[in-house]
Amino acid sequence: MNDGTQQGEPKRRGRRAGGEDTKAALLAAARAAFVERGYEGATVRSIAARAGVDAAMVNHWFGGKEGLFAKAVLQVPIDPNTLVERLLDGPPEEMGERMVRSFLGVWDATGGGHFAAMVRSVTAQERVAEVLREFFVQTLLRRVLATVGADRQELRATLAATQIFGMGMVRYVVRFEPLASADVETMVKAVAPNLQRYLTGDIG
Amino acid sequence: MNDGTQQGEPKRRGRRAGGEDTKAALLAAARAAFVERGYEGATVRSIAARAGVDAAMVNHWFGGKEGLFAKAVLQVPIDPNTLVERLLDGPPEEMGERMVRSFLGVWDATGGGHFAAMVRSVTAQERVAEVLREFFVQTLLRRVLATVGADRQELRATLAATQIFGMGMVRYVVRFEPLASADVETMVKAVAPNLQRYLTGDIG
Repeated sequence: MNDGTQQGEPKRRGRRAGGEDTKAALLAAARAAFVERGYEGATVRSIAARAGVDAAMVNHWFGGKEGLFAKAVLQVPIDPNTLVERLLDGPPEEMGERMVRSFLGVWDATGGGHFAAMVRSVTAQERVAEVLREFFVQTLLRRVLATVGADRQELRATLAATQIFGMGMVRYVVRFEPLASADVETMVKAVAPNLQRYLTGDIG
Repeated sequence: MNDGTQQGEPKRRGRRAGGEDTKAALLAAARAAFVERGYEGATVRSIAARAGVDAAMVNHWFGGKEGLFAKAVLQVPIDPNTLVERLLDGPPEEMGERMVRSFLGVWDATGGGHFAAMVRSVTAQERVAEVLREFFVQTLLRRVLATVGADRQELRATLAATQIFGMGMVRYVVRFEPLASADVETMVKAVAPNLQRYLTGDIG
C-alpha cells in the first residue's frame, strides 16, 4: 500500500502497509462512537461509515463489534469471543484457574502495557467506564457466569472482577514484588482458588 | 490568618483560615520531595523548609511523615499509623475482615474519590508508583504482615494488595453493580475470607 503518496500529501504521515492507516481510522472512529453512543448504541455500520471503510472489514480485521471494542476501548489485544471461549472450555470448577491463565496470558504478552493503558483510559474519561460496564455485563457476565449456574451471578461476576482488576493493578501498574514477577503457576496456585470461590463457592 | 493580604498580593488567591495555605504548600512540597527523592530519601525537615514551615507542624497537622505521604501522594484522608493500628487491633484470623472494613470505611467516606485520585496519580506518573511501592513495604508489609507470622509474607502482602486494589477499582472506578452499591456487610462476607486466605491460608 506504500504508493508514494506520503511525499505529495503533507498532512498525512504516510500510508503504512497492510491497511494500517485504515485500521487506525476505524479504531479512532470506534472509540469516538462507543464513547458517544454506548456499546449497544454504536453500530458497526456507523463506525465503518465514519472511517470510510466497508463494514465487512470490521469483521475481517477485528472479529466483529466486540473485537473492535476490545481493541479500541479496552486496549485488549484479543477478540473477547476468543477469551470467552477459552474461559468456557473446561469444567466450571476450574474456571478460576482458566481466568487467571487467560488474563495473565493476554496481559503478560505485552508486559502489562495494555492493562495500564486501559486503566488510564478508564480513569481519564467517565464515559469509558460506563461503556466498560455495559460491555462487561453483555459479555463476561451473561455468557460466562450463566454457564456456571450459581446463584447471585451479578455479585459473583463483580467479585471476580475485583480479583482480575486487582491482579492487573498490582502486577502491571503499581508492580509490587514479588507478585509482579511471579510466574504464572505461582499466580494460579495463589489466586485461582479465590476466584473459584467467588464464582461457585459460598460468598455469604 | 485572614489578614487582608489578598487585596495587596495579586499573585496569591487569598489566605484561607486555619493555615490552609500553609497546609497546601506543605502538601505540594511533600509531593515534589517524595517524587524526587523517594519515601525514605525525603526528610520531613527538607519538606518543611521547602514550604517555609516549621517541621513541628508536619507532626501537628499530618501525624508525621507517613501521614504527610498518605495525604500528599496516596490521597488517603487518614494517617497510615491509625490504619495500621486498626488492622492490628484484633486476632490475626480476623485480619481479612478488618482490612475490608478499614479500607471501605476510609474510601466509602468520600464516595471513592480518594481512591480514584490515587489511581489516576499512579497511572500518570511512574515515580508515584515507585514511591507507593516503597511505602507499601515499609508500612503494611513490615508492620501488618509481620504480626500475622505466616510464611511467604511478601507474596501474601502483595496478594492481599490485589484484593484491596481490585475492590477499589470495581467499587469506585469502573463501578460495576451490584458490587459498587453493596453494603459493607455483604462485602465483608464475600471478600474477607479471600483476603484471609491470602494472609494466613494455604496459597499453594
